[in-house]
Amino acid sequence: MQRRDFIKGAGVGSLGLGVLAGGTAQAKPQHSWKMITAWPKNFPGLGVGANNLAALIGEMSGGRIQVKVYAAGELVPAFELFDAVARGTAEMGHGASYYWKGKSAAAQFFTSVPFGLTPMEINGWLYYGGGMELWTELYAGFGLIPVPTGNSGVQMGGWFNKEINSLEDLKGLKMRIPGLGGEVLSRAGGTPVNLPGGEIFTALQTGAIDAIEWVGPYNDLAFGLHKVAKYYYYPGWHEPGSLLETIINKQAYEALSPDLRSIVVNACKVISQDILAEYAARDPVALQTLLTKHEVQIRRFPDEVIHRLRELSEEVLAELARQDEAAAKVYSSFQKFLTQSKEWSKLSEMAYLEARDLG
Amino acid sequence: MQRRDFIKGAGVGSLGLGVLAGGTAQAKPQHSWKMITAWPKNFPGLGVGANNLAALIGEMSGGRIQVKVYAAGELVPAFELFDAVARGTAEMGHGASYYWKGKSAAAQFFTSVPFGLTPMEINGWLYYGGGMELWTELYAGFGLIPVPTGNSGVQMGGWFNKEINSLEDLKGLKMRIPGLGGEVLSRAGGTPVNLPGGEIFTALQTGAIDAIEWVGPYNDLAFGLHKVAKYYYYPGWHEPGSLLETIINKQAYEALSPDLRSIVVNACKVISQDILAEYAARDPVALQTLLTKHEVQIRRFPDEVIHRLRELSEEVLAELARQDEAAAKVYSSFQKFLTQSKEWSKLSEMAYLEARDLG
Repeated sequence: MQRRDFIKGAGVGSLGLGVLAGGTAQAKPQHSWKMITAWPKNFPGLGVGANNLAALIGEMSGGRIQVKVYAAGELVPAFELFDAVARGTAEMGHGASYYWKGKSAAAQFFTSVPFGLTPMEINGWLYYGGGMELWTELYAGFGLIPVPTGNSGVQMGGWFNKEINSLEDLKGLKMRIPGLGGEVLSRAGGTPVNLPGGEIFTALQTGAIDAIEWVGPYNDLAFGLHKVAKYYYYPGWHEPGSLLETIINKQAYEALSPDLRSIVVNACKVISQDILAEYAARDPVALQTLLTKHEVQIRRFPDEVIHRLRELSEEVLAELARQDEAAAKVYSSFQKFLTQSKEWSKLSEMAYLEARDLG
Repeated sequence: MQRRDFIKGAGVGSLGLGVLAGGTAQAKPQHSWKMITAWPKNFPGLGVGANNLAALIGEMSGGRIQVKVYAAGELVPAFELFDAVARGTAEMGHGASYYWKGKSAAAQFFTSVPFGLTPMEINGWLYYGGGMELWTELYAGFGLIPVPTGNSGVQMGGWFNKEINSLEDLKGLKMRIPGLGGEVLSRAGGTPVNLPGGEIFTALQTGAIDAIEWVGPYNDLAFGLHKVAKYYYYPGWHEPGSLLETIINKQAYEALSPDLRSIVVNACKVISQDILAEYAARDPVALQTLLTKHEVQIRRFPDEVIHRLRELSEEVLAELARQDEAAAKVYSSFQKFLTQSKEWSKLSEMAYLEARDLG
């Protein structure tokens, strides 16, 4: 994908941001904020989402808040985002909570959990199942406020250069797979590696790693992962709908008037829905491109592998809860919600998709 | 469900609306707006969503817009909402587009289409697949601006007092089922009836109708539908994720400053995600209550019935497109998006839910 396509794809018009084009006089900025991100500049879905968030805050505040966006590495490296916002180098950041498992093991629950909640379910848990309260409490210890800001949808299982026919094929595999999914791979005998998106293509190309999971067709095509791997696996058992986050420096937030606070938090929510909508529209098209133009070979993980990965996932979560008090609290809330959701999803989303696809 | 539960369920805190509690001086309202709705007062999910929308507009605008909410029948009856907002009796309304099929057959595509898009897919189509442009153009003819504001998730198939074992069992059935689903039922030999939510319990209780589809466990339990019907069917083939709408009087919208316009439109988007999140959290709990406390009998429509209803749905949509030029345009865009989405959903959402549920 060319750079001009990234920009064309920004879809600013779809947010209704066009109202500024009316040329109304803007207020002088009362707050000039920096937003640092974990993404390459203007990267589809992720970086573009951060750009749209900055624009929307400017628009709803009538220019009272101006937010300048920095790509990974421009101000700080991707994985130093959390610390940089905590110490006030930037007022806000856009990334994913599982990058900070070194700060708090419990943070991983707020991106995606292997065999856990889907995008729709995770919002249910966060806003009406106690999840936000737990997340807010966890980040308060770092002087940060979390706001869910985007979701990739159910991801793909990753790119491999050999077929995965049994558990044996995961042994010794060096794979870019962050967060809890990585822990599960480790328990299956593989070696998980955590690399920011911008480094993964080269790592696989040079043979430094054997396999990659990144996101799904839209983002994986943008990085050209089909050029360095043969097989594209599904389903994304390890990340069934990865939530992105905005983190806001608590002190900077509290310096805002109540209406501006509400505008910042709710702009994140608007972009949250918008990013998921963009994936829902672009993934199907990118999948077709991968299948027809690049002749990518799609494979499903065998039942035996899925079954074992699910058992290992349960072990990983239970152990995490035993080792970390904050994780135990989040795990208990998450697990309760998941158990309830499973039954309902079988009658609703899953039964419907099966009916729609009935031969 | 008691009235006090409705109010308790308002969940205003979860929207971060609490910032107003800080007691900051509010601006004098520059705009006093009325919002009329198609829902009973404070009805779970729907009416509460409208209340939250009004509160959020007030909060983000720092009190510059004040919105007063009216339940169905308080200012105008539920089904006169569209005309009332068009003529400016109220500045905005919260309802569902398929109630207005008498105004425009094409409007029905923007609620839910039998065997059509899921909640996630419909946002993809609207915001990144051309749907919003078509909807905006359609309503512009009435002096109205549409904004998606909520989704029920995949619905249930409805409440029946006899089992549906074959197509024969749908013949002669008088059922509350609006929109395109109703057209399909009619083609299967049944008689669809369109009634606002507030009238359906009594209609089934008195035998004026034989069956009802309303929403899903959370909303159906609130109306006590399990008291007047024996069997609860799935999946909701007719409404796989029904979108709610806000309609805004175009003249009233244009009288707002650019930042206030953006606040109104984006508040709708925030509530859109929030309503879906509420259903995702409350439906699983309500389902358990229906199953364990009220011993409701859950049934799945047989494959034969699903198959035939899907064929009939395709006929209904194709005929609609032949009869109405606007509908033809929307149908073509919708159908293209659906075809692409189906392939992707099989590898993502559906494959994942099946893997999570693997025995």
